[in-house]
Amino acid sequence: MKKTSFVWHPNTQMREWDSFDEIKSAKGVWLTDSKGNKILDAVGSMWCNVWGHSNPELVNAITTQSKKLQHSSMFNLTNEPAEKLAEHLVKISPKMHRVFYSDNGSSAMEIAIKLALQYWKNIGEKKKTRIATLENGYHGDTFGAMSVGYVPEFFGKFKKQLFTTLQFPVPNEYRVPNGFTFLDHQNYCLEKIEKEFSKKTNIAAFIMESGAQVAGGVIIYPKGFQKKISQLCKKYDVLFVLDEIATGFGRLGSMFQYEEQKSIPDIVAYGKMLTGGYLTMAATLTNKKVYDSFLGEFNDWKHLFHGHTYTGNPIAAAVALESLKMYKKYNLIKKIYNTSKIFEKYYQKISEIDIVGDIRHKGMLMGIEIVSNKKRKTPIRPKKSINKIFFEEGKKNGIYLRTLGNIVMLVPPLIITESELNLLLDKTILTIKSAMPKVL
Amino acid sequence: MKKTSFVWHPNTQMREWDSFDEIKSAKGVWLTDSKGNKILDAVGSMWCNVWGHSNPELVNAITTQSKKLQHSSMFNLTNEPAEKLAEHLVKISPKMHRVFYSDNGSSAMEIAIKLALQYWKNIGEKKKTRIATLENGYHGDTFGAMSVGYVPEFFGKFKKQLFTTLQFPVPNEYRVPNGFTFLDHQNYCLEKIEKEFSKKTNIAAFIMESGAQVAGGVIIYPKGFQKKISQLCKKYDVLFVLDEIATGFGRLGSMFQYEEQKSIPDIVAYGKMLTGGYLTMAATLTNKKVYDSFLGEFNDWKHLFHGHTYTGNPIAAAVALESLKMYKKYNLIKKIYNTSKIFEKYYQKISEIDIVGDIRHKGMLMGIEIVSNKKRKTPIRPKKSINKIFFEEGKKNGIYLRTLGNIVMLVPPLIITESELNLLLDKTILTIKSAMPKVL
Repeated sequence: MKKTSFVWHPNTQMREWDSFDEIKSAKGVWLTDSKGNKILDAVGSMWCNVWGHSNPELVNAITTQSKKLQHSSMFNLTNEPAEKLAEHLVKISPKMHRVFYSDNGSSAMEIAIKLALQYWKNIGEKKKTRIATLENGYHGDTFGAMSVGYVPEFFGKFKKQLFTTLQFPVPNEYRVPNGFTFLDHQNYCLEKIEKEFSKKTNIAAFIMESGAQVAGGVIIYPKGFQKKISQLCKKYDVLFVLDEIATGFGRLGSMFQYEEQKSIPDIVAYGKMLTGGYLTMAATLTNKKVYDSFLGEFNDWKHLFHGHTYTGNPIAAAVALESLKMYKKYNLIKKIYNTSKIFEKYYQKISEIDIVGDIRHKGMLMGIEIVSNKKRKTPIRPKKSINKIFFEEGKKNGIYLRTLGNIVMLVPPLIITESELNLLLDKTILTIKSAMPKVL
Repeated sequence: MKKTSFVWHPNTQMREWDSFDEIKSAKGVWLTDSKGNKILDAVGSMWCNVWGHSNPELVNAITTQSKKLQHSSMFNLTNEPAEKLAEHLVKISPKMHRVFYSDNGSSAMEIAIKLALQYWKNIGEKKKTRIATLENGYHGDTFGAMSVGYVPEFFGKFKKQLFTTLQFPVPNEYRVPNGFTFLDHQNYCLEKIEKEFSKKTNIAAFIMESGAQVAGGVIIYPKGFQKKISQLCKKYDVLFVLDEIATGFGRLGSMFQYEEQKSIPDIVAYGKMLTGGYLTMAATLTNKKVYDSFLGEFNDWKHLFHGHTYTGNPIAAAVALESLKMYKKYNLIKKIYNTSKIFEKYYQKISEIDIVGDIRHKGMLMGIEIVSNKKRKTPIRPKKSINKIFFEEGKKNGIYLRTLGNIVMLVPPLIITESELNLLLDKTILTIKSAMPKVL
């Protein structure tokens, strides 16, 4: 506990918090605070932890590189870890050709947007300037990212400064509109996209999260939905841009969702778990078609004006490379396939709780939607933040939670053992039950 | 040299480059490439290096923290290095009250813009939605940052997606408009701001780089200019937002330019040299007035919706804290005062070169403007990128350069010794002379 603090916490009403627990050390899935309490990292330190904390191979990658070269610029120069990581990323990312580094997911998406818009200018198509997106998407908190992932409650105060997009509805099995079956609604959503694509010639790109909308409430796309959009993009000459920041690197069970969904993008953004969860780094990859459009004589001004100071930082690249190599070494994707089944075992037990409206699960991600009325599916709306209530109840049960609106998120380190996950799910049930009287 | 690469370099016409030199290790101001060539880091690895490379105290800060806690989230939790760093930043930043962490300068500026816009909404002033800026400013490459620092050549392709600002001219001693003295023009610029401020009631904030416009061509503000703008902001109830990303932490000779310029901001952004140049991290600080406006009941929705996954990362915070402590321990600002005089000794010699139009210098930053006609001050415009020509000539002379348009930038590690700086300046003269026939 730290009473006097000068930190302004992200996405936080600071008046609600007297203090924040100070994490001093961590090992595996366990965080230890300054009082010596151990708490299970149920959200993988905000969805980014792969191998658990203090993994010796990753720590070694950081310390070894730190002693050799801490930073060297990618402006006119390069460095070995950044080169090797780019090579590895291209190798594991089907059809991708080049890697543009940045420092966080928002920046990676800003780069994706810029690449998509400039691509058409570079090939002489000046009319293609509009971006199409899905409703309820989330791509980060910077102005470009807010524009393409507009969530009114989050970003309403900046609406005047955001650019507009064409937004399309997204099928949601838990909340199918009246008069539709789920399948009808999927088709309706896709037809709407095709109708607009066939009418409008000014659409530069379609931008969506790959596999699922995570921050928008764990909306897992039905099978074929993402693939069909990728096909429509191809048919109508629209660039297909995917955001794998929260979903890639195994979170939803496969290395990349775009591969599983058979929906090859022109541009894809990676972040979060890229470094295993230890240092910030992000990357935007493109196919050869997009990359080639940026080549020309210097004075054609076809190159991308974008660059951050620490782009391709060797320490971050070294730990990312080590983490990615370990996927194969430890057969992580197969392990996830097995661990993930534990979640399924608990569906019944969790959904029986009075305030649980829906469970949405894929791979190593589970969202438990909390409602005040199961039949009407009414999201709970306590006066205090839902997050704070669940965080405090979770802490009593030894788990670290951070809810997303009215959704309890389970996003543990991918390496979590089966017994740890059983424990986490048991504790989650206890937490939801004990939070119940406080949120209703 | 690496022929097959998958890296897309920042701000680079990739067709111009067959390969990029791979830096393998570095020590002090010297970078060593894969062939064993040593090259002097004349731009401080893009203006961010303070203590030279492989400084043992900084490396130790990284390795020690890496073994303890690599990352823990600031969402609902905190960690020791982030707390200590925030405390230190507030202590050394006059009138600042809270620290909002992020991962790069662009993000720090996006946060500054959001804070400035939302401040007025939070206190119930709904009309204040416009941002005022200086022409030629630069605040980063994301959409919000591009909007407030609009440079037509850089960002023209995204103009449709940028929000508009009120732009004011900036006095430039080297290019005073016809019919003005330099002093007249300063007054004209300031009067223009006051005139608009007195007419318009919708201006939320004035955003400018602190001390100098760096990326815009090293335009060092005349004495009193920044102070006067801060006073106008106060007089007309406009938030004053400063960008110290490139200029703070000693680059221009003082710890923070806003202190030297006697122009206290409401919001200030830090980045680049914050970590000593080893890992990416940025911070946006505000005064109490701005912070307090974000406090309320949870359901007032007055809090800021912004947060990056790795915000407050403990490893980056640990190295930043160590670097900042070393400023006092080694009396760095005083050392800079002395080292900086070396630059002055070379004014005459450099300005005698046929293609040098102007030298602009402050603290540990020098910009040498290259022109094809000294009298007409015509910027050189070779077919190839100026940067590539100077980089190649610099390399022959053992120095690593990255020009900014037609400006040769000298931005060495702050700790550079007097003899190393003499060497760098001698080599810079040789480089400009040997580049001359290639750029004309």
